Amino acid sequence: MPDDRKLFYSMAGTLHDLAEIQGLLEWDQQVMMPRRGAEQRANQMASLAGLMHQKATSPEAGDAILKMENRDDLTADERADVREARRAYDRAVKLPGELVQARAKAVAMAQSVWEEARPHNDFPTFKPHLEEVVKLTRETADALGGENRYDSLLEEFEPGMTEEHLQGLFKEIKTRLVPLIEAVRGAPGQPDASILRRSFPKGGQEAFCRSVVADMGYNMEAGRLDVSAHPFTIGTLADVRITTRYLEDFLPTALFGVIHEAGHALYEQGLAHERYRNPSGGSCSLGIHESQSRFWENMVGRSRSFWRHYYGPLKKQFPDALGDVNEDAFYRAVNTVKPSLIRVEADEATYNLHILVRFELESALLRGSLEAADLPEAWNTKMQSYLGVTPPDDRDGVLQDIHWSAGLIGYFPTYTLGNLFAAQFMETLRKDMPDLDDRVGRGELLPIRDWLRENIHQHGRRYLPGDLCIKVTGKPLSASASMDYLELKYRALYGL
Amino acid sequence: MPDDRKLFYSMAGTLHDLAEIQGLLEWDQQVMMPRRGAEQRANQMASLAGLMHQKATSPEAGDAILKMENRDDLTADERADVREARRAYDRAVKLPGELVQARAKAVAMAQSVWEEARPHNDFPTFKPHLEEVVKLTRETADALGGENRYDSLLEEFEPGMTEEHLQGLFKEIKTRLVPLIEAVRGAPGQPDASILRRSFPKGGQEAFCRSVVADMGYNMEAGRLDVSAHPFTIGTLADVRITTRYLEDFLPTALFGVIHEAGHALYEQGLAHERYRNPSGGSCSLGIHESQSRFWENMVGRSRSFWRHYYGPLKKQFPDALGDVNEDAFYRAVNTVKPSLIRVEADEATYNLHILVRFELESALLRGSLEAADLPEAWNTKMQSYLGVTPPDDRDGVLQDIHWSAGLIGYFPTYTLGNLFAAQFMETLRKDMPDLDDRVGRGELLPIRDWLRENIHQHGRRYLPGDLCIKVTGKPLSASASMDYLELKYRALYGL
Repeated sequence: MPDDRKLFYSMAGTLHDLAEIQGLLEWDQQVMMPRRGAEQRANQMASLAGLMHQKATSPEAGDAILKMENRDDLTADERADVREARRAYDRAVKLPGELVQARAKAVAMAQSVWEEARPHNDFPTFKPHLEEVVKLTRETADALGGENRYDSLLEEFEPGMTEEHLQGLFKEIKTRLVPLIEAVRGAPGQPDASILRRSFPKGGQEAFCRSVVADMGYNMEAGRLDVSAHPFTIGTLADVRITTRYLEDFLPTALFGVIHEAGHALYEQGLAHERYRNPSGGSCSLGIHESQSRFWENMVGRSRSFWRHYYGPLKKQFPDALGDVNEDAFYRAVNTVKPSLIRVEADEATYNLHILVRFELESALLRGSLEAADLPEAWNTKMQSYLGVTPPDDRDGVLQDIHWSAGLIGYFPTYTLGNLFAAQFMETLRKDMPDLDDRVGRGELLPIRDWLRENIHQHGRRYLPGDLCIKVTGKPLSASASMDYLELKYRALYGL
Repeated sequence: MPDDRKLFYSMAGTLHDLAEIQGLLEWDQQVMMPRRGAEQRANQMASLAGLMHQKATSPEAGDAILKMENRDDLTADERADVREARRAYDRAVKLPGELVQARAKAVAMAQSVWEEARPHNDFPTFKPHLEEVVKLTRETADALGGENRYDSLLEEFEPGMTEEHLQGLFKEIKTRLVPLIEAVRGAPGQPDASILRRSFPKGGQEAFCRSVVADMGYNMEAGRLDVSAHPFTIGTLADVRITTRYLEDFLPTALFGVIHEAGHALYEQGLAHERYRNPSGGSCSLGIHESQSRFWENMVGRSRSFWRHYYGPLKKQFPDALGDVNEDAFYRAVNTVKPSLIRVEADEATYNLHILVRFELESALLRGSLEAADLPEAWNTKMQSYLGVTPPDDRDGVLQDIHWSAGLIGYFPTYTLGNLFAAQFMETLRKDMPDLDDRVGRGELLPIRDWLRENIHQHGRRYLPGDLCIKVTGKPLSASASMDYLELKYRALYGL
């Protein structure tokens, strides 16, 4: 291997390793770290981020990329690696090292404060930390340049996507979703969701969740399932960890949460081993990532055929709570469409409106037409306007998500993109696997994992998200598959 | 603050943060990491070590130290910081970056292989990894220069100590210890140690251990207690974690293991907050560190007065196992002196001979008069010669310790130094606190923690270990306090 190839891949590999370390530090902070460790962790994160930035923006790194770009003997994968390295480098060199370090430290502190502030419904304590994060995020967007702060940040999470494009997609979603939700609300036969609020001991929940994710193909020799305040997936390939939280008086949180995170985890475990440290070896985008989690959580986990197989075992696990509940009633209960306060507990139809609230607030924060201090009020106003509900307190309002404290601004819309990608992928899977429902109804989930691995996981970020979508489904991304799916499912479910 | 001061402390702080991250990666690897994650972890460790080395040896780092050395307005603490930074820098610049990275990767792999090899009694699988570690450790010693490989490595762990000095100390130890052990073995009234092999459920062990370390002053808001194959302490200040393993048919492992690790942890929690990221803010040396753990484990935890208070609660925790055992019989059982196979389970008298075995093997490995492949046999020969026992297999022989797999060669003697320092500190504490035994007998352990904090912990590495010893005890280190202590205790205990 000629030396400039070797150098390019060695530098990229180092950056990848350090990013894995960052992930582990985050996991530890949320799952294991002693309460008082926050200050030290913030220093660690800042030092690591500063060093990574230094490494990523070094003249040697720029040189190594340039030398690869000037070669005419690159394979397709190598070209993808160079393309991704170039994108990351061009972004990184625009950011001053002090800003990167300051932001890393601010988000580490803000996350720790959020962990305490949420249960205590204490926005005032959290506010100065959020203000600092917003300030540094605006500065980051400005340093990245471009006409639109939102686009500059979004590019990091969803290459090729723009605020304007998102506005168009959300418009299509609103047009079809709002009437559907209206119709569902007026339907005479409403599911009885109260059965999900009976008593479900934690041990039984965990045992059931573990058996489902094992069936999905999540390899526990390369993973872990732990508890954290905000569920997440972290890591890649042979060390991919998921977390959840168990509410003994609300079954869906852990049940669908774990299936969701395992969807993310399968993606990471399904990447190509031989390319895992390369710039195009990782996952494609957050939207594609979310498509995997929501595919499993909703399109598989909340499907009729899934419960045909799994309701028996679930009932066996919770005979007291579910003894008098039949399969159909349970299926309808976990698919109740009802505007609610908490995003992560929202049904798959109203979910997109939660995202819309956050998308518009983020946009306003970045434009400067809204300040962090005014978020609680703005949040409540938008929740009322789109979902018809008003949070009684900040705990169930603006404090519910960790994302902004983690500096993830310009990120929420990728959740809705995940819904859209997932539905479009499902259309294609149904063509490739006409007996899909029968298989799921027998608890055969591995063929799905294998199809996703073949068509999506193994590629990593070989293709841009929009191109991957066309390659897999033959069509560019739109909201129509997702809206078709929702209309079909919920018109049947509610007898409309 | 003038700029060169600020720069010096900022660079030192970054290096400290990265070292904390290394510690966390090790903790995670041994406590949490999924089995298949070893390869990725090895890459992470190698990349981080390479980067730290680059940072530590950069011309800017050398320059920053030099500028501080040229100032004439430094405080005593600043001078200590510069002295420690200089020592670390001069060592680091002698080591090629490739060697540092290769060694980091090799030890990460070797540790993972050891984790599997030990329970399977599989030295052959472990052998090539150990050979690689030994080879790279020899290269490291050679790169450091100096006349003696052992001294070059030891300097990292115990500044100012030499192989020759150790040989002298061990000679004194052997002269007094071998006759004592002989006398004890021939004593008519032997303790009944079999009571410690009754059934002690894990839950009860953990509860008791947690209550003892709480009494010692170990702050769980800045710490954790978990399970790992080889117990250890990691972290500093507000995030100091300890591990143990629970054997339900052998009480002392967890009981004294946890007190031991909590002794280490108290040291780290007792460092000065305002200096924790500075070069002289960390712990003084491994010998001093071990003095803290062994002080608590043996001189407090295995003392007559300790069990005067704690035997009641322990008996309450294990009424079935200890119902027919009185306090005196228990005290004598946990102080049984008997040559045995496993270092971490050895009594405090024969313990030093376990260290002597390792010290001599390490010396031979470094001199090149012994190869890793020949270690099992050499191990067994020396065990027979010094302790009169021969391991039946490698699991209880050469595979029992993680250290060599972790690249910790030239490290074991610091355990015996810990015994010597501890006894010398105890002599002084007894003068300062004449009612020590009464206090311990009432379960008042915090005054001990406070004395150690005041005299040792808070200083960090402000003084070299030898100087700290003189400062605290008024005398240079020798084996006599430790030998006096052992003779007094065991002559009484065995009625000699």
